[in-house]
Amino acid sequence: MRLLFIGDVVGRAGRRMLRDHLESLIEQHGIELTVVNGENAAGGWGLTPETADELFAAGADVITLGNHWADRKEILPYLERNPRVLRPLNWPGEPPGQGAVVAEGRSGCRVAVLCLMGRVFADSLLDDPFVAADRALTGLAGQAAAILVDVHGDATSEKQALAWYLDGRVSAVVGTHTHTPTADERVLPGGTAAITDVGMTGPRDSIIGFEPDGVIRRLRTQLHVRLEVARGPRVLCGVIVDVDRDTGKARAIERIRVEDPG
Amino acid sequence: MRLLFIGDVVGRAGRRMLRDHLESLIEQHGIELTVVNGENAAGGWGLTPETADELFAAGADVITLGNHWADRKEILPYLERNPRVLRPLNWPGEPPGQGAVVAEGRSGCRVAVLCLMGRVFADSLLDDPFVAADRALTGLAGQAAAILVDVHGDATSEKQALAWYLDGRVSAVVGTHTHTPTADERVLPGGTAAITDVGMTGPRDSIIGFEPDGVIRRLRTQLHVRLEVARGPRVLCGVIVDVDRDTGKARAIERIRVEDPG
Amino acid sequence: MRLLFIGDVVGRAGRRMLRDHLESLIEQHGIELTVVNGENAAGGWGLTPETADELFAAGADVITLGNHWADRKEILPYLERNPRVLRPLNWPGEPPGQGAVVAEGRSGCRVAVLCLMGRVFADSLLDDPFVAADRALTGLAGQAAAILVDVHGDATSEKQALAWYLDGRVSAVVGTHTHTPTADERVLPGGTAAITDVGMTGPRDSIIGFEPDGVIRRLRTQLHVRLEVARGPRVLCGVIVDVDRDTGKARAIERIRVEDPG
Amino acid sequence: MRLLFIGDVVGRAGRRMLRDHLESLIEQHGIELTVVNGENAAGGWGLTPETADELFAAGADVITLGNHWADRKEILPYLERNPRVLRPLNWPGEPPGQGAVVAEGRSGCRVAVLCLMGRVFADSLLDDPFVAADRALTGLAGQAAAILVDVHGDATSEKQALAWYLDGRVSAVVGTHTHTPTADERVLPGGTAAITDVGMTGPRDSIIGFEPDGVIRRLRTQLHVRLEVARGPRVLCGVIVDVDRDTGKARAIERIRVEDPG
Ligand SMILES: [Fe+2]
Ligand SMILES: [Fe+2]
Ligand SMILES: [Fe+2]
Ligand SMILES: [Fe+2]
Ligand SMILES: [Fe+2]
Ligand SMILES: [Fe+2]
Ligand SMILES: [Fe+2]
Ligand SMILES: [Fe+2]
Repeated sequence: MRLLFIGDVVGRAGRRMLRDHLESLIEQHGIELTVVNGENAAGGWGLTPETADELFAAGADVITLGNHWADRKEILPYLERNPRVLRPLNWPGEPPGQGAVVAEGRSGCRVAVLCLMGRVFADSLLDDPFVAADRALTGLAGQAAAILVDVHGDATSEKQALAWYLDGRVSAVVGTHTHTPTADERVLPGGTAAITDVGMTGPRDSIIGFEPDGVIRRLRTQLHVRLEVARGPRVLCGVIVDVDRDTGKARAIERIRVEDPG
Repeated sequence: MRLLFIGDVVGRAGRRMLRDHLESLIEQHGIELTVVNGENAAGGWGLTPETADELFAAGADVITLGNHWADRKEILPYLERNPRVLRPLNWPGEPPGQGAVVAEGRSGCRVAVLCLMGRVFADSLLDDPFVAADRALTGLAGQAAAILVDVHGDATSEKQALAWYLDGRVSAVVGTHTHTPTADERVLPGGTAAITDVGMTGPRDSIIGFEPDGVIRRLRTQLHVRLEVARGPRVLCGVIVDVDRDTGKARAIERIRVEDPG
Repeated sequence: MRLLFIGDVVGRAGRRMLRDHLESLIEQHGIELTVVNGENAAGGWGLTPETADELFAAGADVITLGNHWADRKEILPYLERNPRVLRPLNWPGEPPGQGAVVAEGRSGCRVAVLCLMGRVFADSLLDDPFVAADRALTGLAGQAAAILVDVHGDATSEKQALAWYLDGRVSAVVGTHTHTPTADERVLPGGTAAITDVGMTGPRDSIIGFEPDGVIRRLRTQLHVRLEVARGPRVLCGVIVDVDRDTGKARAIERIRVEDPG
Repeated sequence: MRLLFIGDVVGRAGRRMLRDHLESLIEQHGIELTVVNGENAAGGWGLTPETADELFAAGADVITLGNHWADRKEILPYLERNPRVLRPLNWPGEPPGQGAVVAEGRSGCRVAVLCLMGRVFADSLLDDPFVAADRALTGLAGQAAAILVDVHGDATSEKQALAWYLDGRVSAVVGTHTHTPTADERVLPGGTAAITDVGMTGPRDSIIGFEPDGVIRRLRTQLHVRLEVARGPRVLCGVIVDVDRDTGKARAIERIRVEDPG
């Protein structure tokens, strides 16, 4: 079975890429289940109920989030009643919503999705992602034919460590958060597909989705500079993981990149 | 003219990849100048005079470093007398050595190389890389037909910001330090080639070059666990930047990846 | 001559303590010049022109700031025209305003005041405070009978290092930012008075000035919780430094603490 | 009953202060139980079995540690067999030893001691101290007449938050790690004595225990500079907490400071 994972959707530009391309990607590649990281879908920061609905309408089956999961307060009740939107599993303090779900794919396959956050360089104090993953996997035992883990974080070492740690126990560990695709996709020895970051979906000529000028000024002045989602050409970044339906192991992982002139 | 840049060489495995493949890459692609990041060349941490000599013997014209530049004390006098080994330009406190050099390529072209470090998430307190780059470029005005900048850092936003900031003023801004190649190579509108990270050169089946078990244990226990450079298959990661000899602008940037069974 | 330095004034509670007690402290101790850290004077975050005027009206001669210096945009033009309000000297990017001033005391003594920030653990990327201090002191040579330095920062090691570094060259190095007074006031061997932090001026029964419940919830949930300046009893924290008018060296440093029932 | 807590003992100078003064402090103040933070007792970094024995011989009943708890590998088996030496309770990864103990005082009173670490600015990734404290207190219910908590950390806000969070449930929350005594000792409304940091025991004319020159050079050069424990006059810093034997609530907290010419 094929799982499609799309990296951090940034603002309207990102949502439009999903609307314009997701269904055809799903058809073309015979995708069983589509997971989209939506933590920047609402204007660059967070997710609102409306933007979540838009991502689902575009073809997402599950939405994962990251450090920006609670930027929009209106998403909190939505998370409580919609188990297909995941906040980070290892967020501390018993937050609303959940960090893992078992969803049913197009042909009825059950696929578990986990939303984990790395702690190295994170701007929040988080619970241990290794411990959180172990606990969630114990709870999910026997419930899904495939397991996909989104690891949202900065440090390549930690994201790769989680992939190796989970190797053989999950179908795929895909990184998000840096908004920059890495060229290190591979299937690890135990059968887990891994990539350090799948990259983002949104404005192409940008710094992680935003107008370069604002980001540069913020760095140079260390003052609060309002960042604008960039204009112009758009890009969609993701991966397709081919999973053996019987063993839950990955057979292959392939990067996807779609560009639009804007 | 073509410039070859090779990412962080890790330990003996990385040095061997250079010895086995660098000359043929240089021949095959008609490379004018070769720059190698050597900050992990000596057993994974730092550079010694011997390993520096080995990198030069393998074909490097200039060696750049990063946060590990001073891990081996014996390199300090070597830096003083060898201007082709660069420590970070924006390291504070007037350290020995230099952070920029103008080197002559195979056909006599003069190429300036800068070694910059990003500050976001860095484990050291560094001087402003934007200011340091401006100053160095002023000093280099008219001295080189091409300028290549190694930006060694963690944060994708900061590395991309430096590339956009320098766009039109240098030939290429290539990232290092995460040991993970990114798939975002491009030529920016002003004619500067950019990639967020070129990746590393060393053991392939590893976490940023090291045995996965040790890295996982270090993260899980938060104790000092000695990391070992991994064994097995090796990989070389780099980029080739094609620069217009007359304008100093980049025409193209291409990722290079060579694998060896180990 | 005696210099009075008052630590971070927090909100209305802090401003009220100044209004109610500053003049009598100045009279009682025969103060030559009064410096107040005002970075939290406006509702807990930043300084507005109105709150600055209030601090001056209460008896402040110079106002220093810290990491919150630019929280209120309306202060930026005020900084340009009022050289007695200091933003951090080592803030990067050539910000508006200045970080040092020579002010005249009640009896006509000229006193230089510097506003420095520590970099360790700082949430902003700052220029080197050691270098910035050296430069400023060179520029101030011969212009003042006493020099007082506010070092705004988290790490005790760095703040003490700046005090020892400047020992013999300035009259006093007084720490701010942690909102917690330290009991380590002393005159260093070279004649510089030093204290790691003078503490804050504002609500006493609080966590660094704020209602405990909000701070605890923010830490436990890692979510954005709006912090309220606490109510109830108030405290004023500061130090008096006795400086030899002829040598500029400190003779003594004494902690000041005033409480009000609230 | 009176509990004596002594802050971070640094090197031989610190151990000597205990040897020379601890017994007389215990006698003079009628101390029931003495707790000493020993994380820097062995040459400035960590604790060895020999230095632990020395602290016990000098009068310590319980030794707490902090971020340097595992600097000396030889302490690990010692921790396993000596429950009166505590490593941080909220250290991740199920480390050897324990983070809480119930010890018997001179007159037979049972006193629980907890060793917690703050996470803000910590150089290690730690488990949640609020959650760890809750769990430990549940386990200790009814076992001790007084409970003393050492909170080892950098951020004043977090240490004060833990004190307010535990107010009414423990006898005292005393901070360590900054090696700088704070002047904010008090009894919180619920009956918990609190101080943000008790300061250190070791060389007085130093930067957090070390020769100023080395610390300054390390900060200015950002290079590895070996720090030496300072020479000269010595200081002992601590607090005495007076606890009601029936309620376990604190009646008073008083700072202790002893100086020796060195
Ligand atoms: Fe994102
Ligand atoms: Fe993110
Ligand atoms: Fe490296
Ligand atoms: Fe590096
Ligand atoms: Fe403040
Ligand atoms: Fe501050
Ligand atoms: Fe310590
Ligand atoms: Fe410590």
